[in-house]
Amino acid sequence: MLENDLIIRAAKGEKTSRVPVWVMRQAGRVLPQYRATRARAGSFINLVTNPEMAAEVTIQPVDHFGVDAAIIFSDILVIPEAMGLPYTMDEGKGPFFPKVIEHLDDVKALQTEGIANHLHYVKEALEITLDQLQNRVPLIGFAGAPWTIFCYMIEGKGSKEFSKARRVLVSQPELAQALLEKITMATIEYAQMQINTGIHLFQLFDSWAGVLNADLYARCIMPHVEKILSHIQPQIPTTFFAKGAHFALPQMQTISANVIGLDWSINPKMAREILPNKTLQGNLDPAVLYGTDAEIIKSTHEMMDKFGNAPYIGNLGHGVYPDIDPNKLKLYIETIQNR
Amino acid sequence: MLENDLIIRAAKGEKTSRVPVWVMRQAGRVLPQYRATRARAGSFINLVTNPEMAAEVTIQPVDHFGVDAAIIFSDILVIPEAMGLPYTMDEGKGPFFPKVIEHLDDVKALQTEGIANHLHYVKEALEITLDQLQNRVPLIGFAGAPWTIFCYMIEGKGSKEFSKARRVLVSQPELAQALLEKITMATIEYAQMQINTGIHLFQLFDSWAGVLNADLYARCIMPHVEKILSHIQPQIPTTFFAKGAHFALPQMQTISANVIGLDWSINPKMAREILPNKTLQGNLDPAVLYGTDAEIIKSTHEMMDKFGNAPYIGNLGHGVYPDIDPNKLKLYIETIQNR
Repeated sequence: MLENDLIIRAAKGEKTSRVPVWVMRQAGRVLPQYRATRARAGSFINLVTNPEMAAEVTIQPVDHFGVDAAIIFSDILVIPEAMGLPYTMDEGKGPFFPKVIEHLDDVKALQTEGIANHLHYVKEALEITLDQLQNRVPLIGFAGAPWTIFCYMIEGKGSKEFSKARRVLVSQPELAQALLEKITMATIEYAQMQINTGIHLFQLFDSWAGVLNADLYARCIMPHVEKILSHIQPQIPTTFFAKGAHFALPQMQTISANVIGLDWSINPKMAREILPNKTLQGNLDPAVLYGTDAEIIKSTHEMMDKFGNAPYIGNLGHGVYPDIDPNKLKLYIETIQNR
Repeated sequence: MLENDLIIRAAKGEKTSRVPVWVMRQAGRVLPQYRATRARAGSFINLVTNPEMAAEVTIQPVDHFGVDAAIIFSDILVIPEAMGLPYTMDEGKGPFFPKVIEHLDDVKALQTEGIANHLHYVKEALEITLDQLQNRVPLIGFAGAPWTIFCYMIEGKGSKEFSKARRVLVSQPELAQALLEKITMATIEYAQMQINTGIHLFQLFDSWAGVLNADLYARCIMPHVEKILSHIQPQIPTTFFAKGAHFALPQMQTISANVIGLDWSINPKMAREILPNKTLQGNLDPAVLYGTDAEIIKSTHEMMDKFGNAPYIGNLGHGVYPDIDPNKLKLYIETIQNR
């Protein structure tokens, strides 16, 4: 039994005594104790693949900020790695894949079986975290959504508009759908492993949804998203966060997600009208945390007023930035919890 | 007297016999004749600063594609350069400013007078272009909007979310507003020079509007945009294109722009409802041009149906990509013109 199950109850659409809150990228970046563990690990990928250290940084924000959930410290790119495309992570430069997908044969060569086995270090990190959390708060598991993983597997690194990935989606539909299907299968196996290990909620991150047009996203991408969510939702609550996909909000009303995460470009009032049956999550612009305490409190109250009284989970509109003062983030979290 | 003034009449809200069209980045990138001129120039910046060659590539798409307007070949970053921050342009890597704005003294040191004089090469390029175009189609002038120029002057290069520029906007409001004000003044002088030289329409590009939240954009940025547009509009028609700023559409109804450019994430039907008094421009996803001819024609017709019968200028939702087949772009343009 969870001591604090506010987020799970809010996700299920139940009224809660106060608004619960967690923060994307809460595990890492802004906390000095994270940086100490990260330095001990030697590299980002060492930290991701070391279960003890991953568990340690997962729990740090629960202790420090009093957030209402932990989210396992990991990376969305463990999936391409497990499928056969390893990557490196250069500090400040983002991920880089020396090998990318170019031909249908490359897709055929990708692994979709044994994913959970390959990612045993995530399973171990989840086990250690659950053991050490002692049911204080729920543990959130996650994965990248198929389109976002596809972008990296095609382009090999970050990009402003991922025009190469979009070209493949439009001009090589057979290859694109085969690749998306394989990513989907691998993600389902990965999510099932996380559920079996004991996570309480699962969030699917579509970080690059915003570069697609509404038609392509609805036709070519959403069916894969729904395949993953509909596998998970009968077992535990699900959250879908598609950054920049304001155009896809109407379609989200019908998908197997309990919670829809909103980026900071979305007006929560409008989202409530479009998504009356969903719990909403978000959505302060992380840049607001560069402001004064008074500005942060004012913006947080304004945001909460826009979300209104329906089921709601506080969060930022995207990950917190590394140079944000942890005291400002704490102020944001406490302003939500104490209202 | 212009032979073809369809775009000007559409911009003024008049009905036209057919939908006129031009394309962002039509001057350059996809045409072999552009690449030949670019190779002769030796570098991108040489091409921008050479009036004869800039005029040459400005006219190429009018000859090749039969577009209904020319847009002067130049770069939004000539403004920071004229203000005292020179930049380099690395092929495939984008712009880089060795010196950026860090302190209020850096802002005070920026030039805002003599901008038109410094940018005499743009004036000469406009004069040559107007002379050679012989009134076949209108000539569009342009500049970057203050927020987009601000982003480059603070960060010195492209960025995914421009979090450093957003931090300055939030945490150093005095510096930020002083810088935005200086950029605005320089842009007004630059636009006035373009008007005096004979351009027929002016477009302001806010390429990075999409990283801001609605409140910051409305409070801190739009007043500067309006200052520029309201200076120009009494003289010639104006277009405002703010990429990713779906959240700012309602405010655009009240600004001094005849035309609102839409990126491909915006549903034109929705934009018509929000902006009943504006001419709209856009907005096919350039990635659709990676598809088959049949797909391009179908998507173009669907787009035009969504725009309906009110005043409308065909364009893409952002610049065309360098690896798009020029014949596909030509098909798009002709599909609009022949409907």
